[in-house]
Amino acid sequence: MHHPGFFERAGPFPLHVIASAVDAEVLRVADGTRQIDDLRPLSDAGDTHLTFCAGLKFAKQLAGTRAGACLIHPKNAEMVPERSATIVTETPHRAFAMAIALLYPDAFRLKISEPQGTKSSLVHPTAEIGEGVVLGPGAIVEREAKIGAGTTIAAGAIVGYRVFIGTDCYIGPGASVTHSLIGDRVTVHAGARIGQDGFGYAMSPDGHLKVPQIGRVVIADDVEIGANSTVDRGFMMDTTIGEGTKIDNLVQIAHNVTLGRHCIIVSQSGVAGSARLGDHVIMGAHSGVSEHVTVGDGAQIAGMAHVKDDVAARARMGGTPARPFNEWAKEVAAIRRLAKDRRAWGGSQRRDS
Amino acid sequence: MHHPGFFERAGPFPLHVIASAVDAEVLRVADGTRQIDDLRPLSDAGDTHLTFCAGLKFAKQLAGTRAGACLIHPKNAEMVPERSATIVTETPHRAFAMAIALLYPDAFRLKISEPQGTKSSLVHPTAEIGEGVVLGPGAIVEREAKIGAGTTIAAGAIVGYRVFIGTDCYIGPGASVTHSLIGDRVTVHAGARIGQDGFGYAMSPDGHLKVPQIGRVVIADDVEIGANSTVDRGFMMDTTIGEGTKIDNLVQIAHNVTLGRHCIIVSQSGVAGSARLGDHVIMGAHSGVSEHVTVGDGAQIAGMAHVKDDVAARARMGGTPARPFNEWAKEVAAIRRLAKDRRAWGGSQRRDS
Amino acid sequence: MHHPGFFERAGPFPLHVIASAVDAEVLRVADGTRQIDDLRPLSDAGDTHLTFCAGLKFAKQLAGTRAGACLIHPKNAEMVPERSATIVTETPHRAFAMAIALLYPDAFRLKISEPQGTKSSLVHPTAEIGEGVVLGPGAIVEREAKIGAGTTIAAGAIVGYRVFIGTDCYIGPGASVTHSLIGDRVTVHAGARIGQDGFGYAMSPDGHLKVPQIGRVVIADDVEIGANSTVDRGFMMDTTIGEGTKIDNLVQIAHNVTLGRHCIIVSQSGVAGSARLGDHVIMGAHSGVSEHVTVGDGAQIAGMAHVKDDVAARARMGGTPARPFNEWAKEVAAIRRLAKDRRAWGGSQRRDS
Repeated sequence: MHHPGFFERAGPFPLHVIASAVDAEVLRVADGTRQIDDLRPLSDAGDTHLTFCAGLKFAKQLAGTRAGACLIHPKNAEMVPERSATIVTETPHRAFAMAIALLYPDAFRLKISEPQGTKSSLVHPTAEIGEGVVLGPGAIVEREAKIGAGTTIAAGAIVGYRVFIGTDCYIGPGASVTHSLIGDRVTVHAGARIGQDGFGYAMSPDGHLKVPQIGRVVIADDVEIGANSTVDRGFMMDTTIGEGTKIDNLVQIAHNVTLGRHCIIVSQSGVAGSARLGDHVIMGAHSGVSEHVTVGDGAQIAGMAHVKDDVAARARMGGTPARPFNEWAKEVAAIRRLAKDRRAWGGSQRRDS
Repeated sequence: MHHPGFFERAGPFPLHVIASAVDAEVLRVADGTRQIDDLRPLSDAGDTHLTFCAGLKFAKQLAGTRAGACLIHPKNAEMVPERSATIVTETPHRAFAMAIALLYPDAFRLKISEPQGTKSSLVHPTAEIGEGVVLGPGAIVEREAKIGAGTTIAAGAIVGYRVFIGTDCYIGPGASVTHSLIGDRVTVHAGARIGQDGFGYAMSPDGHLKVPQIGRVVIADDVEIGANSTVDRGFMMDTTIGEGTKIDNLVQIAHNVTLGRHCIIVSQSGVAGSARLGDHVIMGAHSGVSEHVTVGDGAQIAGMAHVKDDVAARARMGGTPARPFNEWAKEVAAIRRLAKDRRAWGGSQRRDS
Repeated sequence: MHHPGFFERAGPFPLHVIASAVDAEVLRVADGTRQIDDLRPLSDAGDTHLTFCAGLKFAKQLAGTRAGACLIHPKNAEMVPERSATIVTETPHRAFAMAIALLYPDAFRLKISEPQGTKSSLVHPTAEIGEGVVLGPGAIVEREAKIGAGTTIAAGAIVGYRVFIGTDCYIGPGASVTHSLIGDRVTVHAGARIGQDGFGYAMSPDGHLKVPQIGRVVIADDVEIGANSTVDRGFMMDTTIGEGTKIDNLVQIAHNVTLGRHCIIVSQSGVAGSARLGDHVIMGAHSGVSEHVTVGDGAQIAGMAHVKDDVAARARMGGTPARPFNEWAKEVAAIRRLAKDRRAWGGSQRRDS
């Protein structure tokens, strides 16, 4: 099946243009006229491609690469083969990301069929739509909402009553945002649900009485929220997500939660009501933080770990209930040894008889 | 950033109006003319605010509160400071929830831009729409569906062919409901998926043959289903959810499942095909119940626990595979002790050498 | 509440018509004029109903059944009571699935209100729509997309720019598909999100730089993807899903993942970035596979197990971190015994004192 491709490629670019765009330096030119027209991993790259080396564990692939140019840390620069130009930077992965953005300028945005979209989108007359806003087909902007300049509201996305969205944001296909204030350069992926009311009840044997949730969701700049993730609005205070925090797909953020800055919350994790995460916290896949728990700055929670008690800054936690990762690893080893230890079993069996 | 707020506040109200609305009694008036215009937690409340005390563990915050009035259990009433009026009730949390509903009468419903909504919603001519039904912009009601009086179908929500929805329900933004019969006062949050066919195959090495699912989903009164949760329709019988059961976000309810009355199913839990839960069952976050398992009335399943076998009424279960919670807690303690016990390790290592 | 039913039933059919439609053989006729008009489980079936017996563990229900006819393996045929006709096949469950499809020919497709749907759907003029394509109300097909003959795009579903979808596919209500090439007879259930960009960052203490994701999602024939599941597009290569693989609800498939053929991925599982699963792999509910891990053909991963290292073909794994299932089961037994063993506790306590 022939397919024309989803992205428009810019370029080609001479080496020095790429180097300057990614804050790197051309250390060695293999061929003075060489131009770069695409990007590839080390093992797939050809002589018009840029590649990158993420560290010494890729030494073998690096030795064999046929790339036109390679982004690499200065300390490893001499390992680049002669046929490839050498472009040095302290952060080759980051520079490679910037190079992709240079060559694929539309990679961060869906191509929207604008004229149709504009006609078919449903914008309330009281909504304020900033300059250059792109509205996908079927996009809905409700009463008194404000959308900042350069923001895209993709097909079928819903922006609710009085929601504020900043500039250069992207609200993905079919996502809904209500009761929320959202900063600049925020990405909300397809199907994410932001601002519905939280799971709060006055419980009783005769039935659980719903507690009205009158808080909001407040999302700072440069946050990303994954596809089909959910962020409930607060009870009386707000649910808040700090600057630069990245949330993967199918994550649950409950009411009154506070997430710090630059956190990484991996897929299918959950943060329960009123929990507080500091800055730079990392949560692995399927992990959880219980209600009212505080997690300190820089703490890391392993995949599948559930945290029941407060976690100190920079602690690494594993297991359920979560304990320090090293302790958990020792316990895993101890139980493995126990199960394999025939003598202990023999002794135990004698006692049972 | 100034924001006008998402909710309209009613009031202010004199103490006795609030007390009567929440089935409580004014025990002591601090200031006869005092009116209440808003609600706050103990530590944030000022003299025109109502607050509540959920129990003795909040004694310190209670002593320092500056609230105009405090809802509290009669046995703790004398702990309320002089400056705050005392309103007594056996269920302060419940009463506070009712007070929020009094002061924020629109907290349970999205503000819908009705005239536009009506024009842009897609209602099949054979659908029956009850009195006072509110249709958000882009809402879809398919052929022969029936929507009861006072129900809201929010923006972009989809009600499928022949679906029945009762009175005073709320179907949230972008949710879809097919092959379902839904009672009164049911809430289906944004993006929830009700009624798609279940995960049933006749498996074989040559490929898995899909088994048609010809059952339905039947949801009783006062049920709540969280954002982006999924409820599959039954195979030959129905998938059923009992009265008053509350389901959080991102929960999976598989085909043929029966959930009892007033259950609480916390976020990211799953109930596998043909499992049966009794009344008042509680499932913690990320927990699971396996296929064809029966869980008795009032049982509680801890977060991250996966139940493989039938569970007795009122049992408390933890771990995977789940066992009685006390046993699981002892096992967690035993393994911790084992890993820390140097002598045992010494002995084991000698045996290995 | 009377409800007219969601499906149209075909028939009734004589026994030999049913047997021939499901590749089975009528072994014994109880009543030569008998016709079958519906299907039921063993215990609910009456004399105009077809039922099936999945094996000897249902012997008791089989003995008591009042079904008009029973699908059964030849080796168990003589166990069918006299009053029921006996129809034999090596694969009774599979045959029963085919019988449902015969009696309920519309069970796999939503009833769509076509004339309205056609008017209200939003199809870009450059999109190519195959013969017999059904577009639900509010369905969106963007620029240069191609939809194969006989495919249904349900209400509110979104097909993005240049997406290719094969023949006889079903894209469910509110689902979105972007940056994807999809084969024939593929089902994407309600709210599934296919093709958004993956969770890739160049991380740093100053903030995480998003890495553009310029790959695609490529889905082979006969794949099924559950409600509200998410499949991210690849980074530089594609995310691929092999022929016949079935994915349940709320599953996460990350960027660059390769899934083999005829896999079964149960609800709320996750496969992390660049992981590779072989053919016929089974993942239980809430299980996970870590980044860059390879899982061999026919391997089985138990519910709640998280796999951190490569898994051999046909291995069965359990626990977190996952180990061979038998070892994990022994460990679970050993720790249980340890916690119950008073003498060991006594010894340990003496050492502590």
